[in-house]
Amino acid sequence: MLITGGLGFIGSSIAHRLVALGAQVSLLDVLLANNGGTPLNIRGIEDKVGVFYGDIRDRDLLRRLVAGQDFIFNLAGQVNYRESLANPFLDLDISCAGHLSLLEACRSVNSGARVVFASSRLVYGRQPSAPVSETASPDPLTLYGIHKLTAERYHQLYWRSFGIHTAVLRITNPYGPRQNVQNGRYGIVNWFLRLAMEGGVIRIYGDGGQKRDVIFIDDLVDAFLAAATTPAAAGQIFNAGSGQTAALREIAAAAIATAGKGRIEHVEWPAAEQQMETGDFIVDITKARRLLRLGPATTLAEGLRKTRCFYEDHAMGH
Amino acid sequence: MLITGGLGFIGSSIAHRLVALGAQVSLLDVLLANNGGTPLNIRGIEDKVGVFYGDIRDRDLLRRLVAGQDFIFNLAGQVNYRESLANPFLDLDISCAGHLSLLEACRSVNSGARVVFASSRLVYGRQPSAPVSETASPDPLTLYGIHKLTAERYHQLYWRSFGIHTAVLRITNPYGPRQNVQNGRYGIVNWFLRLAMEGGVIRIYGDGGQKRDVIFIDDLVDAFLAAATTPAAAGQIFNAGSGQTAALREIAAAAIATAGKGRIEHVEWPAAEQQMETGDFIVDITKARRLLRLGPATTLAEGLRKTRCFYEDHAMGH
Repeated sequence: MLITGGLGFIGSSIAHRLVALGAQVSLLDVLLANNGGTPLNIRGIEDKVGVFYGDIRDRDLLRRLVAGQDFIFNLAGQVNYRESLANPFLDLDISCAGHLSLLEACRSVNSGARVVFASSRLVYGRQPSAPVSETASPDPLTLYGIHKLTAERYHQLYWRSFGIHTAVLRITNPYGPRQNVQNGRYGIVNWFLRLAMEGGVIRIYGDGGQKRDVIFIDDLVDAFLAAATTPAAAGQIFNAGSGQTAALREIAAAAIATAGKGRIEHVEWPAAEQQMETGDFIVDITKARRLLRLGPATTLAEGLRKTRCFYEDHAMGH
Repeated sequence: MLITGGLGFIGSSIAHRLVALGAQVSLLDVLLANNGGTPLNIRGIEDKVGVFYGDIRDRDLLRRLVAGQDFIFNLAGQVNYRESLANPFLDLDISCAGHLSLLEACRSVNSGARVVFASSRLVYGRQPSAPVSETASPDPLTLYGIHKLTAERYHQLYWRSFGIHTAVLRITNPYGPRQNVQNGRYGIVNWFLRLAMEGGVIRIYGDGGQKRDVIFIDDLVDAFLAAATTPAAAGQIFNAGSGQTAALREIAAAAIATAGKGRIEHVEWPAAEQQMETGDFIVDITKARRLLRLGPATTLAEGLRKTRCFYEDHAMGH
C-alpha cells in the first residue's frame, strides 16, 4: 500500500493502523515546509514502513511507487487554506498537477489500484441549508477549496473513464494524536487543546458561535480503510465527519475541561478571516454511515482525552 | 482592451467588432499548434491592433499587458476536449495556471479591469433535465471541462475576494466566419458546412439525433461585450447560447441546403467518442437575455448563409 503525504497527521495515522494490520506500507512525503509532516509521526513503525522522500509532482517517481500497490491513500497536499492565496501557483501545482500525476501513473502502470483521496469540507464554502449532504453545490471560498474540488473531479473522471477505483472523502475538522500543534494553522481542536494544556489563552474571533463537525482521527482512519475496501465506494464522494457538531467556544471549553486549565478570550474578527469563514458547518454523514458501514463516532470528550494523553507522552512541538 | 487568445475564432471576431467601435485593442496569442488561431484572422485590421505573440502563462508579460486595460476578454485556452486526456498536463497548465496568471496580474496591477472569461457548455457534462440553466450541478466528462470549471471558479473568487469585475460565459456550439475548418476538431457546424461546400460526405455517429444549441459568432460577440459592460454581470455565470436547438443530422441537412451540395452518411459510434458524448444539450438562456439584454438570435439558416459567403471569399484552409 502507498500513502502519499505519509508523514502527515492523517497519513501517518493510517500507516500506524495498516502496520498493525500486517500490511506492507510505503510512504511518500516531500516534507514541504510549514505543512505539518515530520518523520516523528512514524516513531514506533519506522522500521516497518518504506519512506520515500519525494514529490507527488515527480511523474517518474510516481510511476515506480504506484506499480504493484493494492491500495493508495492519497493525502499529499498543501494543507492550509490561508496559504492558497498567498502562493496560488504552489497550491495549484501540488493540489492539481500532483494528483493528476498520481492518477496518470495509475492509468499507465496500475489501473487495479484502489485510491482514496483526502478532500475537505472547504469545497462546500458557505451553504444555505444544513445539514450539508454530498449533493450540495460546492461553492469554495478559497483557492484551496477550488483546487481540492478540481482534484476530486480528477478522481471521479479516472473512475468513469478508466475504471480506476477512486473514492473521495470530504474531511470535516479532524483532530487527535500526531496533528502538528506547533501553531494554529493545522487544526483548531488540537490547537485549542495545546493552548489549554499550557494554561494559556484561547483567542476566539467574535462570539465563537460558529459550529464545526469534529472527527477523531481513529474514526477518520476507519473511513479511509472502508472507502478503499468497499467496492460500492468506487466513484463516490463521502462526507467524512462524525455528525457531532460543536460551536468553537464549546470546543474551547471542552479543551479547557480536558486540560484542567486555560481560559477563553473573545477578540474581534480580522476582516480577511471573516471573508474565508464558512459559518456554521453541520454535515450529513448518512451516506458514509450506510455505504461504508461506519460505527458510532468517538465523542469529543473522549477524543480530547486520548489526544491529551498523547501529548503528555510526546513533545508538543513534535 | 486586451483579448487573450486574440487570434482565435472568437477572440479575433471580438477584435474586429472592437476596432469597428473605435477601441484600442491588444491581442495576446501564442499560436499553439493545432489550436485554431492564425494571424489571417485579423486580416483587415492588422494595422489597427497590437499583437503580442506570448503565453498567458508568462506572468511578467501578463502584468505588462494587463496594466491600463479597461476590458479584458479572456479566451486563451487549449480548445479541444479530446486533447485534454491525451495531454493532461498541458491542458492543466494552460487552462488553470494561465487564467490564474491573468487574474493575479489584474489583482496586482489593474483591479479595475473588467474581465470576461470564455467557458464552455462542456462543464455541464450530461444533465438529467432540460433546458439546462446556470444553477445545474456541473458534471464535466473530460479534463477539458474540469479545467474550464476550475478557471470559472478562479474568476468568481477574484470577484468575491478582490472585487475584480469578472463574468463567465458558458459557450454552447459557436459557428461562423473565421472558425478554423482545416479539420473537424474546432466546431461541428462549420465543419459540416465545409464538407458540404466541397460536395463531400458528412459522417454522423449513430442517428445524429443528439441536439445542440448553436450560436452564431455575431451573437456571441454581443454577449461578450454586454458581459464586459454590464455592471450587474460581475461575478455572474451566463449560458451563452442562442436558445435554438437542432439535432446534428438537422445541422448537417441545413449545411447541405446552404451549400447546395454534399450528403450525409451514418456511421457507428466509436466507443471513446460515446464516453465523452453529452447527449442532447438544450440550454436555458433566460438569464443572459434578461441581465445582458441580448436581442433575438440569428437563425441557423441565416448564420450558415453568412458563413458560406465568408468561406467563398476566403480559403477554407485559412
